[in-house]
Amino acid sequence: MALSPEQQAEIDAARDSAHTTRRATVPALEEILYSAVPVLDHGFVRVIDYMGDDGAVVQAARVSYGRGTRKVREDAGLIAYLMRHRHSTPFEMCEIKYHVKLPIFVARQWIRHRTASVNEYSARYSVLDNEFYLPEPAQLAAQSSDNRQGRGNVLEGEEAAAVLDLLKRDAEQSWRDYAWMMNEPDETGLPPDSSRQGLARELARMNLNLGFYTQWYWKTDLHNLMHFLSLRADTHAQYEIRVYAEAMMDSLKRWVPLTHDAFLEHRLGAVQLSSRGIETVRRLIRGEAVDQAESGMSAREWRELMTLLERDGAA
Amino acid sequence: MALSPEQQAEIDAARDSAHTTRRATVPALEEILYSAVPVLDHGFVRVIDYMGDDGAVVQAARVSYGRGTRKVREDAGLIAYLMRHRHSTPFEMCEIKYHVKLPIFVARQWIRHRTASVNEYSARYSVLDNEFYLPEPAQLAAQSSDNRQGRGNVLEGEEAAAVLDLLKRDAEQSWRDYAWMMNEPDETGLPPDSSRQGLARELARMNLNLGFYTQWYWKTDLHNLMHFLSLRADTHAQYEIRVYAEAMMDSLKRWVPLTHDAFLEHRLGAVQLSSRGIETVRRLIRGEAVDQAESGMSAREWRELMTLLERDGAA
Amino acid sequence: MALSPEQQAEIDAARDSAHTTRRATVPALEEILYSAVPVLDHGFVRVIDYMGDDGAVVQAARVSYGRGTRKVREDAGLIAYLMRHRHSTPFEMCEIKYHVKLPIFVARQWIRHRTASVNEYSARYSVLDNEFYLPEPAQLAAQSSDNRQGRGNVLEGEEAAAVLDLLKRDAEQSWRDYAWMMNEPDETGLPPDSSRQGLARELARMNLNLGFYTQWYWKTDLHNLMHFLSLRADTHAQYEIRVYAEAMMDSLKRWVPLTHDAFLEHRLGAVQLSSRGIETVRRLIRGEAVDQAESGMSAREWRELMTLLERDGAA
Amino acid sequence: MALSPEQQAEIDAARDSAHTTRRATVPALEEILYSAVPVLDHGFVRVIDYMGDDGAVVQAARVSYGRGTRKVREDAGLIAYLMRHRHSTPFEMCEIKYHVKLPIFVARQWIRHRTASVNEYSARYSVLDNEFYLPEPAQLAAQSSDNRQGRGNVLEGEEAAAVLDLLKRDAEQSWRDYAWMMNEPDETGLPPDSSRQGLARELARMNLNLGFYTQWYWKTDLHNLMHFLSLRADTHAQYEIRVYAEAMMDSLKRWVPLTHDAFLEHRLGAVQLSSRGIETVRRLIRGEAVDQAESGMSAREWRELMTLLERDGAA
Repeated sequence: MALSPEQQAEIDAARDSAHTTRRATVPALEEILYSAVPVLDHGFVRVIDYMGDDGAVVQAARVSYGRGTRKVREDAGLIAYLMRHRHSTPFEMCEIKYHVKLPIFVARQWIRHRTASVNEYSARYSVLDNEFYLPEPAQLAAQSSDNRQGRGNVLEGEEAAAVLDLLKRDAEQSWRDYAWMMNEPDETGLPPDSSRQGLARELARMNLNLGFYTQWYWKTDLHNLMHFLSLRADTHAQYEIRVYAEAMMDSLKRWVPLTHDAFLEHRLGAVQLSSRGIETVRRLIRGEAVDQAESGMSAREWRELMTLLERDGAA
Repeated sequence: MALSPEQQAEIDAARDSAHTTRRATVPALEEILYSAVPVLDHGFVRVIDYMGDDGAVVQAARVSYGRGTRKVREDAGLIAYLMRHRHSTPFEMCEIKYHVKLPIFVARQWIRHRTASVNEYSARYSVLDNEFYLPEPAQLAAQSSDNRQGRGNVLEGEEAAAVLDLLKRDAEQSWRDYAWMMNEPDETGLPPDSSRQGLARELARMNLNLGFYTQWYWKTDLHNLMHFLSLRADTHAQYEIRVYAEAMMDSLKRWVPLTHDAFLEHRLGAVQLSSRGIETVRRLIRGEAVDQAESGMSAREWRELMTLLERDGAA
Repeated sequence: MALSPEQQAEIDAARDSAHTTRRATVPALEEILYSAVPVLDHGFVRVIDYMGDDGAVVQAARVSYGRGTRKVREDAGLIAYLMRHRHSTPFEMCEIKYHVKLPIFVARQWIRHRTASVNEYSARYSVLDNEFYLPEPAQLAAQSSDNRQGRGNVLEGEEAAAVLDLLKRDAEQSWRDYAWMMNEPDETGLPPDSSRQGLARELARMNLNLGFYTQWYWKTDLHNLMHFLSLRADTHAQYEIRVYAEAMMDSLKRWVPLTHDAFLEHRLGAVQLSSRGIETVRRLIRGEAVDQAESGMSAREWRELMTLLERDGAA
Repeated sequence: MALSPEQQAEIDAARDSAHTTRRATVPALEEILYSAVPVLDHGFVRVIDYMGDDGAVVQAARVSYGRGTRKVREDAGLIAYLMRHRHSTPFEMCEIKYHVKLPIFVARQWIRHRTASVNEYSARYSVLDNEFYLPEPAQLAAQSSDNRQGRGNVLEGEEAAAVLDLLKRDAEQSWRDYAWMMNEPDETGLPPDSSRQGLARELARMNLNLGFYTQWYWKTDLHNLMHFLSLRADTHAQYEIRVYAEAMMDSLKRWVPLTHDAFLEHRLGAVQLSSRGIETVRRLIRGEAVDQAESGMSAREWRELMTLLERDGAA
């Protein structure tokens, strides 16, 4: 993460502010408010505002005049009930806003979540910094041999070195030429050349590759945040977006601890069984032998179920 | 408005709370936070939470690390610019939550705005109070003779009295029979009848008419709030929803005064001219005579334009 | 269902049309296109347009240039895979439009699904017909004693008769006074009274109760249709909306048979197990004894799991 | 545009299909259905499905049982009325689906429109072709000197040549190294190297720059399509997205000619005047002299108004 002294000073100033409010306030989240949590080599996640708390979920479920909360145990029970039965609207009553710095290829996955508000730093309007993502050696993985959408072994030795080298060289050249074409010394630090007009920013940016960092404000409600996390904190998510989701899981825990626990138990750690899957489970519990053929499931679905039940393939 | 002592006590308790926060805080809005502003005969609007302020709009437009605000004049200029050019995403960065009590026929119009989160008091789950809307005499209007969707003269004398009488009588009977069918003395105050099981609430509710009050939590962002207000605070909106929009206009002014002013100037008070409309205006300014036929506009559009320009129909 | 001869003639005319198209076309759905399927005593569901078929889901998942479909078996496998892993975007590529006539209290539940487009018949603009919902005797249920949100036993004998009587009497009076107040003989058939102006429609409508029928055009995509059906065709849904969902299930089957089957198997017939739930299942399959206390689940969750596994409460 | 023979054959096969349907069908749109309209150097836009026509808008506005259409003139009048008064829901009743091939930096602007469904070709799953955007000389523009978000003069001579050269060289190297790192000869045509495992696709893709082409299925309704076009077919839109919007304007005209005309007149060619703007116009028409100071407008807003009225700055 590379915060300039000016940026750090702006953050510090914001953290120094103290106002009195009648609104629901969450000390554990206030603690990290505005702070940049580092992610990847130059990225970060910062919570910059929030609205509501666990109590607001309870309050909305009860459409109450006051706080609507009762004993913590009852509130926890109600929240778990809402989560289990997918009553999502009370969770929409809380809102959170992040400032995120992330590589463009990660931003392209992220933006597919449409139920959020976004303000992105514009490379049409401004000049992007010379910051790009280079994976750590442990993340430099080969294509998975059995999953077209995943990673296999980590690259090693000369191959790893050659790949890192190329990624670095191409990114550096990418930015150097981007800067040269725009010919804007104040923004890029490159020497000016009065014989050239300089290419428009909105065109020059296409010379940057997908590893360069962009940043945005991203705001969503608690329900949609959990939907995002359930997909992106999942082990099938690409590592480079998963680390962002993990940093956000920590803010979820600070913000709404009861909701966080219910989310782990009834969403992230939960599994879905198909109609044939639950029937197979019932038979296995009764001690019957079941195999794939008579289960009616496809070979793939059967394999997934056996893995889930921690059994080997034959029953 | 009919707040029970318990409800008023819950509201007072919420208003008494005082927390310290690092978040942007708006004293003028805090002043009325949680208070119920009366609307119609039994309804109200209460702001129960908010996130962000005028500065958050500026901050998002600049994707800044700190507050991002400069001088008030510059911020006001930027906000007006964003409003004029319909750059809506920075306004999505602020959020507000209301608790509203309103007649069901108003709720049915309101819910058509889909970009909001709603938790409504459930008449499937709970028993509704005996509260229904009766228009004030000044609002008891006849059908408009030239607008199929509007009101004309106010009803007078015997007709007004007869109408009010019917509305009242039918609503009262509606609730009495609703309560009788459910046979739930604790909830309705009606005498119990042990010979009857009582009709399910989810069925009994259909006996209530559209004038009965319901209530909900309604949360939306600043952009969508202004869209709602631009339609519902408009003179063409039905009176019974317009009074809610007007109460909310006051909260908008307290919350984000710069945005509020830009909204009045560039949205609520603004007009749209069609391609032929602006061409007609250009010719009129040059002192040319234009009439409907050569304007290319329909008679109706021409009339609307002349009204807008405060001219009589002939030019 | 009460279609007037004019309405039936309009529907017949639409059904008589035959056009040639290059678009994906589904004969089984064309067969019922425009036809009104009766629901409840006066309601109906009509499919009035659609776009795409099972092939369009496959095509989108493959971003192909042509149809993208292969053998039916491969397509079915891909669709089941997408459904199981909640890859929802390919299902958004198909669209369907219904014309629905339904009681207002059903419409109020239905409209809570925000990801759809709606045009409702306006009682602000037009006069509603004298048609209201009266439950069949078998649906006249008491409040459930163990579920605040459900129905228990069917009412019988005198109580049933008294309830039906009240519902009918209040609805009839509701409409009679509605019509009288508007004083519009052409629309209502009631005798004119030249001594009265007549109340505006937008006000008079509030005298109608929630059992009266409204109608709308409702359009959504296949993904959101299935979300709607998964909630409303569920046994926990109120009977009066479930019958609409069931009529729509038939159109789903005709339209996209492969998706329909995958939906039954992996969504409607599927179950979700919490983290502790799946751990309990694993132990039961291994033949271990587990009881509620050591499972870590709440009593309620435990009960739900045992029901699901078709076991009695003790293990 | 580079369609492979296989792709062209798939398109031709789709165009050869002919089905009979009861659905509203639009011959002028069917004519181009599935055909790829070239945009930029390698991109295209293809309409691949649609639902509804001008009649469906009218039908929805009237919630009718049959076609609901009357004389063309009446329908045109109703459509213009709906457009002028921003009654948007009837336009949501029509749907269209495109297959688009476009540079990634264009895709990043496009995806900001959230009210659409998208399936994008996945570079996590598949290998991207070696196709990138190179501007034509006439589009190689300098940064605008008075608009931070726009283009100025066209670059000329040596500067133009040098810029084109760099763009080409960096893109070519970008892809060559991308291909080399993945080490997948079947997909890239590059020689295999058995000493290397090959980098995972999901990582290798970050070496591609923002000028490379991606493709997606994009589906939206008529209302949201017009919103997209009103922003992207506007003269302030970046040229590289505007040419896509222009190709789509042609499909709009073929599909819904009445809506298209109303869109040009009341949206794309329309202007908005602020409260002070319309007051200034009224005064100018009455022949009064108005200058910026007394108009109450900012210098910038005044300039914009004078340009619109085709006057010079002083009045």
